[in-house]
Amino acid sequence: MSSRLAISADDVRSAAKMIAGIAVRTPLLEYATLNEQAGRRVLVKFEGAQHTGSFKFRGAYNRLARIQGAVRAAGVVAWSSGNHAQGVAAAAKLLSMPATIVMPSDAPAIKKLNTMALGAEIVFYDRRTESREELAAALAARQGAILVPPFNDPLIIAGQGTVGLEILEQASAANADLGQVLVCCGGGGLTAGVATAIKAIHPSVDVYSVEPAAFDDTARSLMSGQRETVSKDAASICDALLSPSPGDMTFPINRALLSGGLAVTDEQVKAAMRFAFEKLKLVIEPGGAVALAAVLHGLAPPTRLATAVVVSGGNVDPEFYASIITAR
Amino acid sequence: MSSRLAISADDVRSAAKMIAGIAVRTPLLEYATLNEQAGRRVLVKFEGAQHTGSFKFRGAYNRLARIQGAVRAAGVVAWSSGNHAQGVAAAAKLLSMPATIVMPSDAPAIKKLNTMALGAEIVFYDRRTESREELAAALAARQGAILVPPFNDPLIIAGQGTVGLEILEQASAANADLGQVLVCCGGGGLTAGVATAIKAIHPSVDVYSVEPAAFDDTARSLMSGQRETVSKDAASICDALLSPSPGDMTFPINRALLSGGLAVTDEQVKAAMRFAFEKLKLVIEPGGAVALAAVLHGLAPPTRLATAVVVSGGNVDPEFYASIITAR
Repeated sequence: MSSRLAISADDVRSAAKMIAGIAVRTPLLEYATLNEQAGRRVLVKFEGAQHTGSFKFRGAYNRLARIQGAVRAAGVVAWSSGNHAQGVAAAAKLLSMPATIVMPSDAPAIKKLNTMALGAEIVFYDRRTESREELAAALAARQGAILVPPFNDPLIIAGQGTVGLEILEQASAANADLGQVLVCCGGGGLTAGVATAIKAIHPSVDVYSVEPAAFDDTARSLMSGQRETVSKDAASICDALLSPSPGDMTFPINRALLSGGLAVTDEQVKAAMRFAFEKLKLVIEPGGAVALAAVLHGLAPPTRLATAVVVSGGNVDPEFYASIITAR
Repeated sequence: MSSRLAISADDVRSAAKMIAGIAVRTPLLEYATLNEQAGRRVLVKFEGAQHTGSFKFRGAYNRLARIQGAVRAAGVVAWSSGNHAQGVAAAAKLLSMPATIVMPSDAPAIKKLNTMALGAEIVFYDRRTESREELAAALAARQGAILVPPFNDPLIIAGQGTVGLEILEQASAANADLGQVLVCCGGGGLTAGVATAIKAIHPSVDVYSVEPAAFDDTARSLMSGQRETVSKDAASICDALLSPSPGDMTFPINRALLSGGLAVTDEQVKAAMRFAFEKLKLVIEPGGAVALAAVLHGLAPPTRLATAVVVSGGNVDPEFYASIITAR
């Protein structure tokens, strides 16, 4: 059965070698105040310290660094709500490859500006009326460039999975007996990669996806056994997680490996962002705070062992962040 | 000559043993964006991840844990602008000792609330008209309690010095060849402790204090060779660093060991806080950002080696933080 999955733990190990010394080995942090609040030992994998402020650089670099020969000069095309955009742009810059990114016109300004600052060309689209996949595919075909999808790609999934390898190594170094891992989930690439690494090395650890309540397609798909979609008019402040359905590569992995899918409300996300500001001193973007929100609000299944939460990124506009931390 | 200094590197090593497994071994972080901006390799010692959100727990625990016997029940009295208050309160709580803290009435609300939440009794005073030292001494005498000063105490200085030990170990683990260390400086306890550890183990590393321009008493004292004071009406947003003159225990250490004193304006501090929000994803309070500000604004002496900057804390009121990150 596992032979039908898009990647194996060896692919994650290969990705770890590819990004070694290039991506940041982000810290796994522990706070007494968080443990007390959550009623369990919590380890925070802080991907805000990754290049471009989110985990996305890992998969992007693992994908782009393997493009060899003549096709390299034609560069890459990607679509992204903002974090994959920056990850691809940063990897392309390091590898001296041109990059074109298709982004929604309503992406956070900080994500647009950072992507431009990294030298990528940006093409905007309307999330409600246009198909980013078709737009990106057309651009790639015209330029002879390689299409780098945000999650539905074996090298991308394997690259994101390096987060899981590091969690295992760092939890062990911290003498933490790991019981479960909570992963922010949009299209499911990070979740699938992390689950692949964790379950291959430490099968007794439970891995859960965490989604915004309005975008709980993975949670519902895990229950029904098939890929479900969200309603057309779904909305959430978690701009990084607005994926309408699980990927056809990521879902089989997540169905095989996850113990379940959790969901949090936007209000719970905001409370987690405030908690991180006040107590953890970490800037977390809405989509990066869903796993923390789950453990803070008692939504994670009980365990006497340690729970690792992935904080996937910190790219949030200052005005929006200010409104969240000052809300009473 | 060094025999006349209040502490030695052995005192810092002893403090490291005392706080091992109790204080947080905070991460030493590196960011490509910061290296690029600063034009050098920069390592960020992030004490926002320490218990109570600043380095102060280190010295407080090292001091309080050594109080034995009957006097322990009478507890401790401390004065503080807020971070030492929380550090002492947290250490006292862990050690089941009563704590009374003398705080300025205009301390940030987050520092007052956190200190109260840790179970300490707070006595407020007016920074402009009352002497906190006299107030605290009178309280301690009345209660038979031990006075725990914020910096002018060998065990406090040694405890804060553990930051320096960790920087050396973590820089070495990161294969960084350390050339200089920049330390936020109020009364000089953290600076003196860090300098003691660094210069004993790695004498070629230059250690600099960094102060708010209006509270540059240590910088001027280093130049004149005697303890200088700031003007009575000096003001700065760096509430943690509003010390009017160097301590009589900390200054001899800093005079013997520092390579110089730097100073930054409040505007440079705000820019560093914004940079940390946007690029580092770290919440830094004004006083915690002065060393980062110095390296970001080209105020640190040139070096081809790595520069470590201590980010000493992250306790800042949300409304004030919001105003800083949204300023244009």
